[in-house]
Amino acid sequence: MNHEFFKIISRDEFQTLLMNFRSTGTKASTISDAFGMVLGEDIVSPEDLPPVSRSCMDGYAVNARDAFGAGESNPAYLECRAELRVNEKPDFTLNPGECAAIPTGGSLPDGADAVVMVEHTQDLGAGTIEIRKSSAPGDHTMLRGEDAAKDELIFKAGHRIRFQDVGLLAALGIGSIPVHKRPKVGIISTGDELMEITAPPKPGTIRDVNSHTLRCLVSQAGGIPVNYGIVRDELDKLESTLARAVAENDLVLLSGGSSVGMRDLTVRAIESMPESEILAHGVAISPGKPTILGRSGEKPIMGLPGQVTSVQVVMLALVAPFIRHLMGQTDAFSTSGRPVVMAELARNTVSKPGREDYIRVRLTERSNELPLAQPIYGKSGLLKTMIQADGLMIIPADTEGYYSGRSVQIWMI
Amino acid sequence: MNHEFFKIISRDEFQTLLMNFRSTGTKASTISDAFGMVLGEDIVSPEDLPPVSRSCMDGYAVNARDAFGAGESNPAYLECRAELRVNEKPDFTLNPGECAAIPTGGSLPDGADAVVMVEHTQDLGAGTIEIRKSSAPGDHTMLRGEDAAKDELIFKAGHRIRFQDVGLLAALGIGSIPVHKRPKVGIISTGDELMEITAPPKPGTIRDVNSHTLRCLVSQAGGIPVNYGIVRDELDKLESTLARAVAENDLVLLSGGSSVGMRDLTVRAIESMPESEILAHGVAISPGKPTILGRSGEKPIMGLPGQVTSVQVVMLALVAPFIRHLMGQTDAFSTSGRPVVMAELARNTVSKPGREDYIRVRLTERSNELPLAQPIYGKSGLLKTMIQADGLMIIPADTEGYYSGRSVQIWMI
Repeated sequence: MNHEFFKIISRDEFQTLLMNFRSTGTKASTISDAFGMVLGEDIVSPEDLPPVSRSCMDGYAVNARDAFGAGESNPAYLECRAELRVNEKPDFTLNPGECAAIPTGGSLPDGADAVVMVEHTQDLGAGTIEIRKSSAPGDHTMLRGEDAAKDELIFKAGHRIRFQDVGLLAALGIGSIPVHKRPKVGIISTGDELMEITAPPKPGTIRDVNSHTLRCLVSQAGGIPVNYGIVRDELDKLESTLARAVAENDLVLLSGGSSVGMRDLTVRAIESMPESEILAHGVAISPGKPTILGRSGEKPIMGLPGQVTSVQVVMLALVAPFIRHLMGQTDAFSTSGRPVVMAELARNTVSKPGREDYIRVRLTERSNELPLAQPIYGKSGLLKTMIQADGLMIIPADTEGYYSGRSVQIWMI
Repeated sequence: MNHEFFKIISRDEFQTLLMNFRSTGTKASTISDAFGMVLGEDIVSPEDLPPVSRSCMDGYAVNARDAFGAGESNPAYLECRAELRVNEKPDFTLNPGECAAIPTGGSLPDGADAVVMVEHTQDLGAGTIEIRKSSAPGDHTMLRGEDAAKDELIFKAGHRIRFQDVGLLAALGIGSIPVHKRPKVGIISTGDELMEITAPPKPGTIRDVNSHTLRCLVSQAGGIPVNYGIVRDELDKLESTLARAVAENDLVLLSGGSSVGMRDLTVRAIESMPESEILAHGVAISPGKPTILGRSGEKPIMGLPGQVTSVQVVMLALVAPFIRHLMGQTDAFSTSGRPVVMAELARNTVSKPGREDYIRVRLTERSNELPLAQPIYGKSGLLKTMIQADGLMIIPADTEGYYSGRSVQIWMI
């Protein structure tokens, strides 16, 4: 068998296949533990926030109409009805011409719709307060429901929880929310030449770099990496390890199968699984073409290139978004998974049409200009090219390259 | 006591005080667990990587001089000395006029310095190989030491380990490295009005939002959050909880003390600790002015504003970089802790000179132009302003604002 006989599909087609896999199930999580996780259901506000209108300043609660147009030269005079405390719920209604002293955080009485800061007032004694600044409804107050109104949809299912979202949920008294479980991702390294990284080196052996970088990239994307060690190039051993990994995980990654022999072995091992199917024999991206996608039942299995830098790019380009998809994130395949910056391309960069190119670039900051993106050339097998890179520039399959000076998007790595 | 009597120091002065605190100690870590941690010592390459020169392609190992200038119309003819296997260390030296068949990943014999891809050759039989393409030294090979040379400094102490760094360490056979421990960060919420977020609401109480957002932001920065619950406004209770938190953590955060009364209580509680000192009573940033810095012995204690959005900004601006500093990161106080993007400011934005302003902005992507940064106005007490924000724009203390159209840096949140 020669892998050139197999159809290589486009990145979009590959992505569509990945998106057909269903996300992992949901579980209840405390909101602190939910940070970085993905919502399993829509969240609707159970109440108005703030529940009552509150003052943002020390001052006087007023009906704004009573202080409208007031100023240094034409102050308004109001009668101070009460001195409110921060944890007091006023049981009266402010009448026209009245105000109430209120501390920061205090609840406004009915009839009040604004606060005048204490600096713009003077207590004239005998219950009379001079107001020296005009006021408009809502001034220096947070109105009831201004942060969230009862029954308002605040977060959609599929949204990844940020720290500020945890804050809003806490403020609404929501202590637990349904989130998607982190997918468990089995990692199998394959290849006769591979050895554990701390084993004494022998001629012809290569240290198993990929299981370590895959572990990092899986956990960075939100998955739980599970290592199955190194499997020799023997079909029965690969089959038994793969069967175990498929049973125990939500996704299985095989790394090392980019030589034709290893690719064939990977394909045969996948095909030997129950209800199995090979969905793609390759994808039109560079580096990363020899990436295999299969399934056993509903479980996805991916055969990744063995080359140490290619596999890092495939992880960033395809596997990390796929893990985010499995953990329920709605926009998992948009670029939003990594920070994206705009940069100015420093030199003409040629790309082979028909494949999407992932070019490593180094960024140089410039004051008040876009950073300059310098493509890193050099043998793709060198780890150094990824060490030196700040990000990846993607050249789409339908173009022959980009000219120097073009504004380009860079995925930061 | 009135807090206005106290000196407010600049952000730079505050940062200098923070940088005087020493980082947490180091421990040995496996390289996979070291992902995201900070190196405790310089790492020097123990060997050449690759240890031998290797082929990047299937083809023929040659001495480039023998194939220099070869082409379709003037091929070179070499004698095939051997057929090398991938895990074989050649025990011969290639003589002039000789080549050796070599697979991808195979070790080059002595005397060879380049590989000609098999597509540019033809096996004429009887051991003669026709070379149809010119070759230069290094072509299609990774030369010995090209990724890392023996004794080369590869990572400096204080460097935060990325996934690609884990890959290089694995390739060098380094299984364990010294990293700084994650700082333990005690979190104490203070205030009579605070209640646990899931407790039944009572008039005048406010849910304790901050301990939840602090927890997220501490762990995002690399620290280990330790919660000490809500402490009422009583000096003896605050003192005993603070003493316990100081003993058990590398940094203690007190949140809630932005009212004058609470600030005084916080200051007094810090002063009651052994070997204590108040280092700063405030910092010239907005929001975040009422931020207190103290110490007990070598342990830093920070009093944070109680206002739910101010405290988030202070965490991003000061506390998160401080946690990265405590965990040993050399460039902890540069902006590199968060992704930074350039954007075009959508409208004139005024800033009060003498303080550093952190303006929340929402970004709108535009094709082949900088994203547009729209300042979010609205009451700073509203959580919504942080929910809507994509990032923060910093206006330095020495300017009165930025004009619309200016290129600005945005810290993504």
